[in-house]
Amino acid sequence: MEKSAIYHRPESEYCYIYSPGHVHVRLRTKKGDVDKVNFIQGDPFNLHLKNWHLNESPMEHLASTDLHDYWLMDTDEYVKRMSYGFHIYGKDGSDVLYNDKGVFPYEEEHLNNSGPYFRLPYFHETDRFKAPDWVKKTIWYQIFPERFKNGNPENDPENTLEWDSKAELTTTDFYGGDLEGIIQKLDYLEELGINGIYMTPIFQAPSNHKYDTTDYYQIDSAFGDKELFKQFVDEVHRRGMRIMLDAVFNHIGAHSSQWNDVAEYQEDSKYRDWFHIREFPVPKATDIQAKGLEYNAHAEDLPYETYAYVPMMPKINTHHEEVQEYLLDIATYWIKEFDIDGWRLDVANEVDHSFWKKFNQRCLSVKPDFYILGEIWTSSRSWLNGDEFHGVMNYSLVGNITDFFVGKKSTPTELAYLLNEQLTLYRKQTQETMFNMLDSHDTARILTMTNGDKDLVKSTMAFMFLMHGSPCIYYGTEVGMAGGADPQCRRCMVWEEEKQDHDMLTFTKDLIQFRKDYQPLLSYGNLKWNLLLDEENVVGLKRELGDDLMLAYFNQGEKSFELAQADNQKTLLSHLSTTTSEKTMIEPNGFTILWEKQAK
Amino acid sequence: MEKSAIYHRPESEYCYIYSPGHVHVRLRTKKGDVDKVNFIQGDPFNLHLKNWHLNESPMEHLASTDLHDYWLMDTDEYVKRMSYGFHIYGKDGSDVLYNDKGVFPYEEEHLNNSGPYFRLPYFHETDRFKAPDWVKKTIWYQIFPERFKNGNPENDPENTLEWDSKAELTTTDFYGGDLEGIIQKLDYLEELGINGIYMTPIFQAPSNHKYDTTDYYQIDSAFGDKELFKQFVDEVHRRGMRIMLDAVFNHIGAHSSQWNDVAEYQEDSKYRDWFHIREFPVPKATDIQAKGLEYNAHAEDLPYETYAYVPMMPKINTHHEEVQEYLLDIATYWIKEFDIDGWRLDVANEVDHSFWKKFNQRCLSVKPDFYILGEIWTSSRSWLNGDEFHGVMNYSLVGNITDFFVGKKSTPTELAYLLNEQLTLYRKQTQETMFNMLDSHDTARILTMTNGDKDLVKSTMAFMFLMHGSPCIYYGTEVGMAGGADPQCRRCMVWEEEKQDHDMLTFTKDLIQFRKDYQPLLSYGNLKWNLLLDEENVVGLKRELGDDLMLAYFNQGEKSFELAQADNQKTLLSHLSTTTSEKTMIEPNGFTILWEKQAK
Repeated sequence: MEKSAIYHRPESEYCYIYSPGHVHVRLRTKKGDVDKVNFIQGDPFNLHLKNWHLNESPMEHLASTDLHDYWLMDTDEYVKRMSYGFHIYGKDGSDVLYNDKGVFPYEEEHLNNSGPYFRLPYFHETDRFKAPDWVKKTIWYQIFPERFKNGNPENDPENTLEWDSKAELTTTDFYGGDLEGIIQKLDYLEELGINGIYMTPIFQAPSNHKYDTTDYYQIDSAFGDKELFKQFVDEVHRRGMRIMLDAVFNHIGAHSSQWNDVAEYQEDSKYRDWFHIREFPVPKATDIQAKGLEYNAHAEDLPYETYAYVPMMPKINTHHEEVQEYLLDIATYWIKEFDIDGWRLDVANEVDHSFWKKFNQRCLSVKPDFYILGEIWTSSRSWLNGDEFHGVMNYSLVGNITDFFVGKKSTPTELAYLLNEQLTLYRKQTQETMFNMLDSHDTARILTMTNGDKDLVKSTMAFMFLMHGSPCIYYGTEVGMAGGADPQCRRCMVWEEEKQDHDMLTFTKDLIQFRKDYQPLLSYGNLKWNLLLDEENVVGLKRELGDDLMLAYFNQGEKSFELAQADNQKTLLSHLSTTTSEKTMIEPNGFTILWEKQAK
Repeated sequence: MEKSAIYHRPESEYCYIYSPGHVHVRLRTKKGDVDKVNFIQGDPFNLHLKNWHLNESPMEHLASTDLHDYWLMDTDEYVKRMSYGFHIYGKDGSDVLYNDKGVFPYEEEHLNNSGPYFRLPYFHETDRFKAPDWVKKTIWYQIFPERFKNGNPENDPENTLEWDSKAELTTTDFYGGDLEGIIQKLDYLEELGINGIYMTPIFQAPSNHKYDTTDYYQIDSAFGDKELFKQFVDEVHRRGMRIMLDAVFNHIGAHSSQWNDVAEYQEDSKYRDWFHIREFPVPKATDIQAKGLEYNAHAEDLPYETYAYVPMMPKINTHHEEVQEYLLDIATYWIKEFDIDGWRLDVANEVDHSFWKKFNQRCLSVKPDFYILGEIWTSSRSWLNGDEFHGVMNYSLVGNITDFFVGKKSTPTELAYLLNEQLTLYRKQTQETMFNMLDSHDTARILTMTNGDKDLVKSTMAFMFLMHGSPCIYYGTEVGMAGGADPQCRRCMVWEEEKQDHDMLTFTKDLIQFRKDYQPLLSYGNLKWNLLLDEENVVGLKRELGDDLMLAYFNQGEKSFELAQADNQKTLLSHLSTTTSEKTMIEPNGFTILWEKQAK
């Protein structure tokens, strides 16, 4: 047995309380190295009275990656305290005990010793990772407000261009999109099936993207005002939708009053500790601009810290108590006064954990079912322990999906392994409130990634909709919008019906409805790989919840793929796929999603 | 290469900020499987400008356990953001890149892709694990107040027995020890070299151990009063010593006013939510006692939660806000009003993390260099991330030492592996403020564990004093006190000089002085294994800090062990060991600790 590959970590994604009285315990072993694992558990205070070390329960094989097998124990009785260990049976015939001190022979001497078992010391509901239930039911729609709809030309900024008038966008274009425009299109979104809107920043800021905030307490005047925003939120809520705003707390705009003050008074500014300044003097926003150091500048030798190396975005010192109070007041102001439902946190990983823990407490104390989403592109365990975020923008998971479908970088088996790896990174309940999106304002659009292959877009979207976590559609994807990396991915929304892709719109509606119809299974069900044909480039997966079983097959190969059709199956959604009473034929780039009635 | 054994975890004990601008990164590989590991790092925002993926730095081999090698990168330049990966060279000639997504071929395609590198997103001092510096310099002395010294017979409880008058103690004996007695003996402790006192509980409680608190705001009347306690703390501080009290917040005594109220008014009690009550009615303390269900009772079918299964110790509901405020007020009251220096937290692992985080914030806001120590017997990573405790009672590490010296359960090599495993469990700065003790009020005394073998006690003590972390002496060890498990380990302190072991006293003083003289090296220095002779049962270790080098050898074999004496070495402390100009001869059960001058 490869003992060096065995891994478990108490009080982490390897051992956590899933729901009250319901514990998940995972174990990692070398792939294909272990025959079975039995779970040993009992109360730390009664080993010698109960001899619970003699009772073993088999663990379930949870998933495989290219290097590992993961095992799961899903306890089904209320546990208030738990000592536990693993009895691991190697394929080589050996067996061992694995506990908090290491790997030992499976012998009485070690089994009888209650001290070295792993420990779940006490079940505390307050420490359990919890996230709002509504998020699991949400189909998100991301809006870049400057480009969605110009509802009120009167608030257009200077030099506003005609809607969608340029073939190639620049980073400084303005098109006049605003809140009024979004309100006008809420019926459209409702009809599409959307029930959650995520908007990139809407607070006062000079740029078109508004990530350079100058006043967190004001709606940008080109977007509207607070009264209009209040009306907008009410309209959203009236439709049973939720609204998530973008909190840019890592940095502020160089045009903000705080940075202005520092640039004017330097060391003597009352805001000098609001930033990370290495050396005075620091430049004014206008000086930065005069040097041509705009948003895309890369300036490594600045005397102050910034977002990346962007001079116009000085980094905020979130360790400073006054700054914390300022930002936490902003965070709660928009919840208390306008009843928003979530904050998406920009560059969330570069702000300190200590601040996010306070942020979590303050937001949830105002609105207990508030959703907190971090922008993090890497693995994100340290933010997802229950006291910071409820989810992250799941670039890390979805990247594996686009690498397979779009990049052709992996085989079906590799895709399955990579996704399994992602799924074992977090507690199961964390997966359920992740935010999955194929593209965003920070990436090329999916249609452009696929070089305009709409069938491929459909397959990729459908696949993402089958994952745990809530899917998000980037505005315009549903009408076939294309666009490369920023700023081309931020084109004006296409509203002229003759320019819209109606087939894609219908497909998107169907997909959203499908996600809603099968939400419990898609949120909570197990994910297993049903079929992985590397040569044919076909992936089959299943989702299971109790007696419910869903099967899905994606054909990314060059030949049609034939599937025998069983009597107890019905097709839920498909594309480039035909089903007769005997068989389903999936064409290249097609997919089919089936429901299978279980024999009772 | 055994890729399945490779492990790293961002933002954990595998990657942390040791001191400002100074990052430690660790990696785990299969033992003996890897030739070398190179560290690749740079700023996530400038990979393509700087091509930092081409710069590699060799990692140091940190330690081995029975199954693994651990590697360390100790970066010595200020890092504000870091993307990083590992270039691992197998002994089989293969080499791979290990990053946040897994193990890949060491190829440009993967090296050039900045996304999948591991990330230390931003250096935040506020998130760094920090602990008070004074703790590293502290030699602790644990006092069980009822048994240390009866300084004032007037406050003796009823039925107080004559000091040390029984050969076998019972759990309900009283001997009249009190604060006045400890004050009288502060000169004694000062002379011994002690500079930190940890006292088991001193608040009002009926038992002799006081773990069944009835009033957290009162000094137990048999110990003294607040005025006397104030005087005591002042006397302690005047001597440059620190004082740590025992906070029993997991449970309360059944005689407390809160439990009395619940037992009297049941569902209608205003304290009903202060406990974890499954079913009413709950019994009064007197009813519990009438049934003979005292402190050692094991009652599994109680209608309320308790510490272990002890009916007289109902568990406190620390999720309840009112209860939190009550306990946090107590925690800060004794700091603000009496200037205590630390809390030792009883049954710390069974109280929720959420409460301890608040506890940490509140205590440190009152006294920034306050010390928080948890009683946890297992591995304790989830409490030691910087926002809960500064250390735990290190039973887990010290157990390996007593298993070797006393239990004869391991070879020198196994000892080294087990201790290395413990050292890799935590950040280096965490090790520096751990609390190491061979025995306590909860274990048999070390002299009894060794069956009275004083030479063995000396070796074991000296070995423990060589570890990172602060050593603690359980009262009376220095005068040769023996005693089995509770209550025999809680005998009255021996004050009659003719009954004291003066040789042990001298040894203890020398050992304490040694720890003080070499504190920086013993707190901060690396620990390496110099010599591991399993057949001869000899262990040699070294501690290194900069140019300072300490060597120590312990002979647990049956034959004398000879060591060539080098010119540049001097003996710092030894027992059963003689040194001539040519050699050092260590007898069985002896040890020697040497200082080696480095050639400049």
